[in-house]
Amino acid sequence: MRAMRLQHGQLRFIEDAPPPVVPADEVRIRVTRAGLCETDIQLVRGYMAFEGVLGHEFVGIAESGRFAGQRVVGEINCSCHACPTCLEGAPNHCPHRTVLGILGRDGAFADYVSLPDRNLHPVPDHVSDDEAVFVEPLAAAFRVLEQIDLHEKRVLIVGDGRLGQLCAQVLSQETGRVTLVGKHETKLQLARDCGIDVVHRASRSDQRDADVVVDCTGSPSGITDAFRWLKPRGILILKTTVAGTPPLSLAPIVIDEFQIIGSRCGPFAPAIDALTRGKINVRPLIQARFPLERATEGFALVQQQPVLKVLFDVS
Amino acid sequence: MRAMRLQHGQLRFIEDAPPPVVPADEVRIRVTRAGLCETDIQLVRGYMAFEGVLGHEFVGIAESGRFAGQRVVGEINCSCHACPTCLEGAPNHCPHRTVLGILGRDGAFADYVSLPDRNLHPVPDHVSDDEAVFVEPLAAAFRVLEQIDLHEKRVLIVGDGRLGQLCAQVLSQETGRVTLVGKHETKLQLARDCGIDVVHRASRSDQRDADVVVDCTGSPSGITDAFRWLKPRGILILKTTVAGTPPLSLAPIVIDEFQIIGSRCGPFAPAIDALTRGKINVRPLIQARFPLERATEGFALVQQQPVLKVLFDVS
Repeated sequence: MRAMRLQHGQLRFIEDAPPPVVPADEVRIRVTRAGLCETDIQLVRGYMAFEGVLGHEFVGIAESGRFAGQRVVGEINCSCHACPTCLEGAPNHCPHRTVLGILGRDGAFADYVSLPDRNLHPVPDHVSDDEAVFVEPLAAAFRVLEQIDLHEKRVLIVGDGRLGQLCAQVLSQETGRVTLVGKHETKLQLARDCGIDVVHRASRSDQRDADVVVDCTGSPSGITDAFRWLKPRGILILKTTVAGTPPLSLAPIVIDEFQIIGSRCGPFAPAIDALTRGKINVRPLIQARFPLERATEGFALVQQQPVLKVLFDVS
Repeated sequence: MRAMRLQHGQLRFIEDAPPPVVPADEVRIRVTRAGLCETDIQLVRGYMAFEGVLGHEFVGIAESGRFAGQRVVGEINCSCHACPTCLEGAPNHCPHRTVLGILGRDGAFADYVSLPDRNLHPVPDHVSDDEAVFVEPLAAAFRVLEQIDLHEKRVLIVGDGRLGQLCAQVLSQETGRVTLVGKHETKLQLARDCGIDVVHRASRSDQRDADVVVDCTGSPSGITDAFRWLKPRGILILKTTVAGTPPLSLAPIVIDEFQIIGSRCGPFAPAIDALTRGKINVRPLIQARFPLERATEGFALVQQQPVLKVLFDVS
């Protein structure tokens, strides 16, 4: 099969990669479309020291299992469901887990991918393949709603990239007081067109009026901005990992009694539901698409220009 | 009056300092005893760029107000009680506040100190002056109980210094699963004598079994230790400010969805109550005392040796 592998730090398109070995409790899925995520870029740069087929945002046709023949999306954490962490209700944190295209498991930038049947969710007919690719990152945005109560809260989303746009739309469903702060006029305009309140970072003053800041920048600047804009006792949600060990003043956390909450993968059900009901508009985020064999061009594009979402047409 | 001032980065004992000016809503207190805190050491090193009389842990006799003639302790944050932050119930975070011996207000290493009457709490007769000096840091330990529910939680207190010892005693009242992790055998023995479960940092393995870690080290190592010992989704309470901008890997916060909560000043009432009922044993922590005029010797001692608490006899 065709696959886009990361090997010795190099991205390589392989024409005749071996198809995935499918254990008894797993299902082989014929991938139709996949999405490029900031994490994929980080992986190419060495994050997690991953080697194998990249890709964890996808939609495809299940070849067996509960949803045989149907279009499915899949949760990316494959957990043991038997250890104390799993039994305490945190399977996404299973110490024995593999993670699709990120940790110990080949991903979805390929003709076929294997996932446990329990990880799969069917895609309703009137959600297109293009939209379905967004279920995974959209679920990550919905994770925030599992972690904190946003009712009546004043929320700033910092970072106008892919995840910032999705978070802005999702969190706007819960509170009317969401503002997206960004640096790119075109991206801000796109959010504005989706009905989101936006402000350019350069024109945002130092007023401390936010109850919650959601950092979607992947840069330490998002954290220092949060410390300037949060009310005392405010909450900073970290949605993106910051690479390396950036120097950061921690004193404000104690002095202002900030609360910082890491936020990773989220629930698929509300994400699929929101797309089904047309409550989230992901189409304007799609700014380029490539056939799988030209996926390297998509990686290059994202690193050169501020494009939002790149999709790969697989079959 | 006599006072221990910090001026141009220098500690100075002054024999004839002017007594504090006392506004209408404030009370002059004749200080009898005061305690040296890690924050005082940080202030001498330049933290907060404070200039003036140091000292915020004290007991004394109120000369007027609700508790005229009685022994009192005093909350250190002097807030406007009129701004949005105060009215939202967070006066300790008032942007207009002064803080005793820390920010814009002379402290208690002096014969007299002034505080708003509303900040004062009477000290019950059978709480000694030595014990009453601990109300302020003990209140800071009780703050943790206001912030999180420790019921059934496995708690590690990291740092066997003054604050770590107090936190270990206070948090042990709420859960039977508290362990103090430290580097100093004599300090750990002292905690053991108070009935606290202790372990030397060097013999603590990397097992991730803590629901909550309370950092009382004032060093970035406390945070990296916490990230090794916390369960996924665990809570790190930061009780001490870390000076400067230490390089720190932030990725674990997102990957493990840790929650970090800054924790500063706390409620005086439960601290006084705990001392009154003899539930907290602070006496073993007192390891040196100096008359006020020799307070610089106390500062020097704390920086040279791992002593726990130094008291100053004022009158």
